[in-house]
Amino acid sequence: MADNVVDVAVVGASGYAARELFRILARHRRARVTVATSRQGDANRVEDLHPSLRGRIALACEPFDADAVARRAAFAFLGLPHTASLEVVPALRRRGVKVIDLSADYRLKDPQVYADWYGHPHTDPEGLLEAVYGLPELYRGEVAGASLIANPGCYTSTSILALAPLVAADLIERDTVVIDAKSGVSGAGRVPKPSTLYSECNENFSAYSVGRHRHTPEIDQVLTAVGRNRDAAPVEVVFTPHLAPMDRGIFATIYARPKHAVGEHEILDLFRSFYRESPFVRVVDGLPTTKDSAFTNFFDVTARLVRGRIVILACLDNLVKGAAGVAVQNFNLMIGADEAEGLH
Amino acid sequence: MADNVVDVAVVGASGYAARELFRILARHRRARVTVATSRQGDANRVEDLHPSLRGRIALACEPFDADAVARRAAFAFLGLPHTASLEVVPALRRRGVKVIDLSADYRLKDPQVYADWYGHPHTDPEGLLEAVYGLPELYRGEVAGASLIANPGCYTSTSILALAPLVAADLIERDTVVIDAKSGVSGAGRVPKPSTLYSECNENFSAYSVGRHRHTPEIDQVLTAVGRNRDAAPVEVVFTPHLAPMDRGIFATIYARPKHAVGEHEILDLFRSFYRESPFVRVVDGLPTTKDSAFTNFFDVTARLVRGRIVILACLDNLVKGAAGVAVQNFNLMIGADEAEGLH
Amino acid sequence: MADNVVDVAVVGASGYAARELFRILARHRRARVTVATSRQGDANRVEDLHPSLRGRIALACEPFDADAVARRAAFAFLGLPHTASLEVVPALRRRGVKVIDLSADYRLKDPQVYADWYGHPHTDPEGLLEAVYGLPELYRGEVAGASLIANPGCYTSTSILALAPLVAADLIERDTVVIDAKSGVSGAGRVPKPSTLYSECNENFSAYSVGRHRHTPEIDQVLTAVGRNRDAAPVEVVFTPHLAPMDRGIFATIYARPKHAVGEHEILDLFRSFYRESPFVRVVDGLPTTKDSAFTNFFDVTARLVRGRIVILACLDNLVKGAAGVAVQNFNLMIGADEAEGLH
Amino acid sequence: MADNVVDVAVVGASGYAARELFRILARHRRARVTVATSRQGDANRVEDLHPSLRGRIALACEPFDADAVARRAAFAFLGLPHTASLEVVPALRRRGVKVIDLSADYRLKDPQVYADWYGHPHTDPEGLLEAVYGLPELYRGEVAGASLIANPGCYTSTSILALAPLVAADLIERDTVVIDAKSGVSGAGRVPKPSTLYSECNENFSAYSVGRHRHTPEIDQVLTAVGRNRDAAPVEVVFTPHLAPMDRGIFATIYARPKHAVGEHEILDLFRSFYRESPFVRVVDGLPTTKDSAFTNFFDVTARLVRGRIVILACLDNLVKGAAGVAVQNFNLMIGADEAEGLH
Repeated sequence: MADNVVDVAVVGASGYAARELFRILARHRRARVTVATSRQGDANRVEDLHPSLRGRIALACEPFDADAVARRAAFAFLGLPHTASLEVVPALRRRGVKVIDLSADYRLKDPQVYADWYGHPHTDPEGLLEAVYGLPELYRGEVAGASLIANPGCYTSTSILALAPLVAADLIERDTVVIDAKSGVSGAGRVPKPSTLYSECNENFSAYSVGRHRHTPEIDQVLTAVGRNRDAAPVEVVFTPHLAPMDRGIFATIYARPKHAVGEHEILDLFRSFYRESPFVRVVDGLPTTKDSAFTNFFDVTARLVRGRIVILACLDNLVKGAAGVAVQNFNLMIGADEAEGLH
Repeated sequence: MADNVVDVAVVGASGYAARELFRILARHRRARVTVATSRQGDANRVEDLHPSLRGRIALACEPFDADAVARRAAFAFLGLPHTASLEVVPALRRRGVKVIDLSADYRLKDPQVYADWYGHPHTDPEGLLEAVYGLPELYRGEVAGASLIANPGCYTSTSILALAPLVAADLIERDTVVIDAKSGVSGAGRVPKPSTLYSECNENFSAYSVGRHRHTPEIDQVLTAVGRNRDAAPVEVVFTPHLAPMDRGIFATIYARPKHAVGEHEILDLFRSFYRESPFVRVVDGLPTTKDSAFTNFFDVTARLVRGRIVILACLDNLVKGAAGVAVQNFNLMIGADEAEGLH
Repeated sequence: MADNVVDVAVVGASGYAARELFRILARHRRARVTVATSRQGDANRVEDLHPSLRGRIALACEPFDADAVARRAAFAFLGLPHTASLEVVPALRRRGVKVIDLSADYRLKDPQVYADWYGHPHTDPEGLLEAVYGLPELYRGEVAGASLIANPGCYTSTSILALAPLVAADLIERDTVVIDAKSGVSGAGRVPKPSTLYSECNENFSAYSVGRHRHTPEIDQVLTAVGRNRDAAPVEVVFTPHLAPMDRGIFATIYARPKHAVGEHEILDLFRSFYRESPFVRVVDGLPTTKDSAFTNFFDVTARLVRGRIVILACLDNLVKGAAGVAVQNFNLMIGADEAEGLH
Repeated sequence: MADNVVDVAVVGASGYAARELFRILARHRRARVTVATSRQGDANRVEDLHPSLRGRIALACEPFDADAVARRAAFAFLGLPHTASLEVVPALRRRGVKVIDLSADYRLKDPQVYADWYGHPHTDPEGLLEAVYGLPELYRGEVAGASLIANPGCYTSTSILALAPLVAADLIERDTVVIDAKSGVSGAGRVPKPSTLYSECNENFSAYSVGRHRHTPEIDQVLTAVGRNRDAAPVEVVFTPHLAPMDRGIFATIYARPKHAVGEHEILDLFRSFYRESPFVRVVDGLPTTKDSAFTNFFDVTARLVRGRIVILACLDNLVKGAAGVAVQNFNLMIGADEAEGLH
């Protein structure tokens, strides 16, 4: 029924996450995309930016105008580069538009931490206060009532979902966590850079931003909050991102020392119990692979014990569960729809 | 012996063909790279541009200076973008440096054809007259005596070597030639462009420049010359380039109608005879694949008859036999070395 | 409503096309998979064969038993190797089950041609007579009334859809058609072979079955039938399949000589008109790429004129529009559902 | 000079490591391959098994016969599956042939450890006693005098070379070592398996043999020996192998807790000093990538400090420095040639 359908805008329509959003929203029964904006302006249609969407989305792009968005949409998904959201979010919120921001701008609760890691002061502390961290598996209730969602990073979601049950149960030594993460290249975005050329990435495996990747404080912040019920000690992870020669997928291999002896089955049971109401978490017995969750909103995870260390292996699709998919999952909760609408 | 070693310069050191040149020259017993120039200037060492060369080439890059090159090198390999060679070549030649130009600037004998296809008048008609087309399998003698080599394009070498025996023997209808060519992405160069990003090329197959790729007139020109002994009619090919999701290699599938009935073995024998003195041509019975010639200077070719049509299947490595390797092969002929020196 | 839902079986559940079928049927509102059979027997669940389906299909595999299938399903999709369908199809049809056969066993109308190309006599001439070739864009009406569908091959669909408008309009010389086709590796199936190992296919481009691929007679047969209204001459194509280093997608570059002068726009208009009622054909102005139709049921096509030759460039996803997707499209027509149900 | 050239056999000629051996030996000035054996017997030439070698190696394959090998070769490189070497090695050594064994059969000094990890008793304890572990960077002297070399595994070489300087200097807590290793698919060999099909590996990242990969005891054994000068405690690593969608290369990210505060430069200096006489170790300031050492015999390594943890990042080509290249490096030492002969 038409009155059940929510009009939404995609602000920043040219990137890969935006393309995934369009793809998902095209089959969503409760959303209709009425506005698409891009800096390239109105010369383009969405299908010119993303030819794969031809026949699925018929919409002209336009330059961003907060009034125009507010007139024609109740929700806006923001696929903007970091810091650009800081201007757009307040403008939209003043006009009553609910916002799901895929950038990092509202994820770090402490403006100083944001300034330290992003090299830019945070100019919307008010928005920051109200922003809900959009990880439905942890914050389903808050998400449902939110007007501004800070949609989490792809490495971050993988890492947090893989560690939250262990931290919440106070099962691991908090200063022993190593996250060795591998990402497909689409996570690096669509702006041409020498490092993401085909001939640089293909047949190549590399690490980058070792010890200083911006998802680190995000992981620390959320896991520390998750674990606060049991122990005030902060979680401080060693996080190493790598680039693998593939489009999609994040694979995280996570190592931590348990506080006391624990069995593999016990850990798997803990995960199953922790995520029993989360339709997109698959706790598997076998080893997950990125291809099994590619193009889906699933997060796959398992656990092993190796020489006294807990080893967690976890995967998701960085553009879906790590970006556009979880954004729609948040949207579903916010409009009271089935959490999985559009995501099968 | 030191007095047998020739000092060479690599002008335009930052691209993929230049990297291959360095790699090959590092093990060449008759060449020593004494100069490397790049527009980025002298801040970089060659190993900073190409980390794979660390421990193989120890050389600082410098801005291009014709006098400096002439003082320290007898030969220059030019890895410059098209039109940039038009300035560098005369400057070096005036100073007595022999030049092997990997750009397209001296390949087309008719300046008007050059202007038509490259959108830029040819400003060195004198050089153009003296330039020898550097395809040793056809012009071994001329190459040996040349002072300026127009090193052929990668699609061009593949297409010409695959068709020359047929055209020379006047075996095919000249207006029925279709060249369906597939290239690895390194052929598109190292300058960042949206179309050569990993996430655009990976898991993708596409055509480009259909009917208007600049290698077309080059193929026409050389094949028409090759066939002139038998028939004055020009060869005019239909040439379609494609991009395949791989780094290296060109695969050409070529279709032509024979002038009269001919057998597969006859064609293979013709090829073997035509190339009997060419150490880098492998006429094979089975079907060639790009991987079999990758990282080598070999050109692999076979022939089939399908419903009365001749089908030629041919492969080479676009960066080696299609660029840096054939450049060194030309160099070897020019200095009187073994044609295969450095190329095993 | 439950009485609108059709129970279906997937016979031969372990291959890639079967996996795609499950993926599509999982979100189909008019189908419910009630039976999955595989030679491995009942030890496995569908999610063990295809871990990506975990949480989407909960079904145990069982050995094939025609009675069991007939009891629990009204339709069967067959993902069996060639010749295996010859036994299963009659058994199911005798029991009133409608069949969509993804193998080649019912595609060639002349049993002798089948025997010649598949090396095996056709043992179900009766079924052969009744089988409808499942290309909805050409045979929408017949498909709707069929009880047995011969689902077309992936190369075949690409080639036929790309040529049918030209042949139907009698626009091309029928003995000048060259189809240069490139396929992703999933088309070679899931049975381990040396030639489809990762390290053989990756960074490699090759041709295979040159002049003798089994999709050739299928293309000839359908195009000859399509063109019969205007000219009795058979269409006999030169067809060359290639393997590209990617999972999915077929790209066909097709060359033909027009019977008379014709413009590019005229050809594109012809295509648009021919396919005006086909929701999955996208006639595009730009050049199609395999990635734009990957994971969709779209067939993308455009045309160019090059030196008097018509060049058609066409793409589809071999596992979707080239196999499981068109199978569901046929199913939709057979049950009177929206042609696109489950395929968005 | 001919009398300086050593005749060598390649026993087990069909695999990828054997292909690399042929490629390297073809340009080696001190070796001549006179025998190639394969189980397929004498029907094949080496170029039939490896078409890339056409024109580089002209040799017929023959079934293995110890007498024939001993008559025609002084050295044998063994590219056999594990346990097969246990029969071939004694047979060759009895006949005076020096052996470089690329299998795992002579790597583990304790026959019980071998039996535990390979599920097969060790049947040549005498050979085991004399075998020298062929890691020239650690055992250059022993290698030079050896008659039987246990050529190390690819993961093993990467891990040991990355950790040996730290263990030798007693810089790290021995029970905190985590090795997160990523390998190209060629490491899995050339025998067709479902798990190494192109469509399974491409666009996929996975872990395997978590906590039970057979290279684990090899790493423990050598590092424990390396560290014995300072501390008797065994090194027991947590080792996790992963499969990355690429042909070649191993990337190891290694985490360890230092025994006392140490600076990044200090660690890099330690590495440079430790490997100052090793021509194939490149201690780099930047981050290594697998592509930079692909097709070379280099081992690239760097170090970082992250939140008090030492992080080592190391790469090599699994088929060259991880197999065939180091085998030739060992051979060079054994015949008194330049350590780098054939390996540039």
